[in-house]
Amino acid sequence: MRVKRIEHVGIVVKDLAQSRAVWEECLGLRLAEVEELPQYEVRIGMYPVGESMVELLQGTRPDGTYARLAREGKEGLHHLCLEVEDLEGALAELRGKGVRLRDETPRPGHQGSRIAFLDPASTGNVLVELVQRAGEG
Amino acid sequence: MRVKRIEHVGIVVKDLAQSRAVWEECLGLRLAEVEELPQYEVRIGMYPVGESMVELLQGTRPDGTYARLAREGKEGLHHLCLEVEDLEGALAELRGKGVRLRDETPRPGHQGSRIAFLDPASTGNVLVELVQRAGEG
Repeated sequence: MRVKRIEHVGIVVKDLAQSRAVWEECLGLRLAEVEELPQYEVRIGMYPVGESMVELLQGTRPDGTYARLAREGKEGLHHLCLEVEDLEGALAELRGKGVRLRDETPRPGHQGSRIAFLDPASTGNVLVELVQRAGEG
Repeated sequence: MRVKRIEHVGIVVKDLAQSRAVWEECLGLRLAEVEELPQYEVRIGMYPVGESMVELLQGTRPDGTYARLAREGKEGLHHLCLEVEDLEGALAELRGKGVRLRDETPRPGHQGSRIAFLDPASTGNVLVELVQRAGEG
């Protein structure tokens, strides 16, 4: 498999609107897009940085994964998303090498992409997401 | 201030050599460089990914920051490093905006760079490092 780039770094926040003070006013990034992903109970804000993005994740249901993390004080770095050209091929290859997968098959992701998460138990406690961009492969 | 790119994502590991199984054999990245930074009690392995790098951090003293994190089960995503053109200028601007800094002035970093960390209390619990590459500014 070939990783093309860090597509984004996912960061859990309590509140997207409040986080703009940090990422826009202080660090000078520009919010490109806000997207609701109701199936994952999350609202994401995408900030382009070079060829990558910073993805802010705000939970939209109190009992959802992201809202719970924020409530438990686990805001901050959440996952690392790497772009590949062929997601099914990458998953098959990883499976063959004994890497445990959270998603055995791709599921819909941000911006029309397809994504899959690896099991952090196989990657030194780093939550790695793989993405194949819409229109590729 | 203008952020040029995600320069690297810092990841704490127990053992650089063992981590090669994940980052090289499974994810197909290539180790570009191993560098000792004895003043920070750390050995780093740099894996280029597109215009960015994955930086693996292995503590080199049992009572140092990185070795302690690994021992306490806090392996995994550690910090996000953003490249700026003018580090002093960026720090002055951030200070003026009320952002708390861990490093008030730049200090030596990886690969001959100069770096400074911001206080995660000011950045939604994300440890942000700013870097100015050697030869710039």
